[in-house]
Amino acid sequence: SNSFNSKYHPHRRYNPLLDEWILVSPQRAKRPWQGQQEKPLTSVQNQYDPKCYLCPGNSRVNGVQNPQYEGVYVFDNDFGALLRVEVTTDKTEDVLDELLKIKPERGINRVICFSHDHSLTLPEMSVEAITKVVSIWKEEYQSLGELDYINHVQIFENKGAIMGCSNPHPHGQIWAQSSIPSEVARTQQNLKNYYYKHGTTLLSDYLQKEIGINERIILENNSFVALVPFWATWPYETMIISKRQVNSILAFTKEDQVLLAQMLKDLATKYDNIFSISFPYSAGIHQAPTDLESHEEWHFHMHFYPPLLRSGSVKKFMVGYEMLAEAQRDITPEQSAEILKKSSTIHYKNR
Amino acid sequence: SNSFNSKYHPHRRYNPLLDEWILVSPQRAKRPWQGQQEKPLTSVQNQYDPKCYLCPGNSRVNGVQNPQYEGVYVFDNDFGALLRVEVTTDKTEDVLDELLKIKPERGINRVICFSHDHSLTLPEMSVEAITKVVSIWKEEYQSLGELDYINHVQIFENKGAIMGCSNPHPHGQIWAQSSIPSEVARTQQNLKNYYYKHGTTLLSDYLQKEIGINERIILENNSFVALVPFWATWPYETMIISKRQVNSILAFTKEDQVLLAQMLKDLATKYDNIFSISFPYSAGIHQAPTDLESHEEWHFHMHFYPPLLRSGSVKKFMVGYEMLAEAQRDITPEQSAEILKKSSTIHYKNR
Ligand SMILES: O=P(O)(O)O[C@H]1O[C@H](CO)[C@@H](O)[C@H](O)[C@H]1O
Ligand SMILES: O=P(O)(O)O[C@H]1O[C@H](CO)[C@@H](O)[C@H](O)[C@H]1O
Repeated sequence: SNSFNSKYHPHRRYNPLLDEWILVSPQRAKRPWQGQQEKPLTSVQNQYDPKCYLCPGNSRVNGVQNPQYEGVYVFDNDFGALLRVEVTTDKTEDVLDELLKIKPERGINRVICFSHDHSLTLPEMSVEAITKVVSIWKEEYQSLGELDYINHVQIFENKGAIMGCSNPHPHGQIWAQSSIPSEVARTQQNLKNYYYKHGTTLLSDYLQKEIGINERIILENNSFVALVPFWATWPYETMIISKRQVNSILAFTKEDQVLLAQMLKDLATKYDNIFSISFPYSAGIHQAPTDLESHEEWHFHMHFYPPLLRSGSVKKFMVGYEMLAEAQRDITPEQSAEILKKSSTIHYKNR
Repeated sequence: SNSFNSKYHPHRRYNPLLDEWILVSPQRAKRPWQGQQEKPLTSVQNQYDPKCYLCPGNSRVNGVQNPQYEGVYVFDNDFGALLRVEVTTDKTEDVLDELLKIKPERGINRVICFSHDHSLTLPEMSVEAITKVVSIWKEEYQSLGELDYINHVQIFENKGAIMGCSNPHPHGQIWAQSSIPSEVARTQQNLKNYYYKHGTTLLSDYLQKEIGINERIILENNSFVALVPFWATWPYETMIISKRQVNSILAFTKEDQVLLAQMLKDLATKYDNIFSISFPYSAGIHQAPTDLESHEEWHFHMHFYPPLLRSGSVKKFMVGYEMLAEAQRDITPEQSAEILKKSSTIHYKNR
């Protein structure tokens, strides 16, 4: 039949956070793949690696020695993309050439070791240990955000070599800086437009709809929901949204922090179980900038962007058409949600 | 010194085509790399491969047999992301839920074999043979664009397995569709704003400035300039811009087409010579949509997005911070331009 059915027909979906469309091609999932295969993602690590620059007691490239830490350890990145030092310029924004705009950027790059144990990954850690990571995110967001020259704090993790992670030791990063980064600024603009129009946050209203439909929801507890967004771009993209409308991690109680840790563990475990491998992704928190505005439009959420498509060795390439024209996906968000719902929260290594 | 110098200090640059900033970290180029290495990109191909579904005379997955073509051969993709068939829906845009917008998309996916010779890549082809590719781009843009349901024609090439290309046979693609894709719509909005403000195209004015500064220009002939954009994101990103303000490939004379072919050959050769490998990239043309508007704001240009950073086996990962916050680069556009200028236009295989 030629009457539109989103399970079978090419279509576009709208991402209201970024105000852009993506292309969905359900009929394309069957195409054969003769392209690049990734290396197996199943290497086993020791609990301590004498060559790892993140393990307790080891020396880093610049000679600094890590303490004999237990649990979480945070320090400034030795090769940060940003620098703490203030750089002066006499060119204010308005005198810059319209087509050659450039300005110095000040900031801080932090590394967070999630555990002293080199062999672990987030889904293999205890809820208690993950809760400690969440509480450090909160502390860092607060203390960095309080610095007068820091207006945005980006907390994220690159998991797996395929996501540019150069060390399997479980760790994440924080990049804090003076400006609001481009993707965040775009998101904020759309959140503001929605808030001024409706008086509610975009994500509160969206969450209500998703709970009503109950097709793309993966996990739910008293404080959080994990779902595949209606407009998901990456094959197994998900989002964790707080049920209460809070604009940052600062509003989370002790109990919220435990519930977020529990959800992180369960979601990451479901990911690992899809292909029985350590499932790679980039994940990060979107929340209010620390620029001292009130930001009623913001609503705490966390994005998960995993690169894999068909198996542990075939990823989705966001290239050519995607770079020049528009993001494109093959399996539908609903199919992915189905797979993620069925995937167990007991880790395959423990079965 | 703490007085701002773009060679040494972290800074942001503005991309006026996308109305967004990128982060540049010149001081970071020295960081050691212990992460993922790509496979060597130096495999040698035969002129004919009996297993290749693009070689003349071979059968494709769906049983169709390719003709014994010489030179360029164009056909509909057997596993297209879009379909020619019309799909009906009674939901018009304005009745769609504000947060769950979805609509069918109609279109055509074409594959263009650049040559019958399986062993070639664009830089190894003759200017005459590349001119034939350019003339087919023009023909396809015209004939697809004339269809009433096609409002945008995206011409592009994914080169190399690392860019998701599943077959080394030299080929590109065309995705033609009803809607204006997201990245193109964004670019168009910024081009329009500039045109209404100044009465000139953004890229004419930008090109004038770059010719005056002469620091980022890589190649120039009577009709085209190749340069590293001031706001380049990928380490070796470049752009070819037509000197005359024309809004599409339709305006190109025979001579223009030869000069574009010459520039494509020279630019791709310079790329291959940087690391003495077949240099991967995604490249594509941005030009006026075929929606019958006049589009004085558009100015023909072609983007090259190559993934490599330090060598043939270490790429730039656009992950974590880049996906969530903002594109980031290490070496400056000026350093890349220097390397590309010095790189020879005589292919390393012919020396
Ligand atoms: O069309 P191909 O070569 O099979 O596929 C390649 O290019 C497409 C268009 O950029 C992408 O959507 C795919 O992810 C990529 O693997
Ligand atoms: O900081 P790392 O782990 O050395 O580097 C990784 O994450 C960064 C932040 O997403 C990216 O800029 C790098 O391209 C990536 O390799």
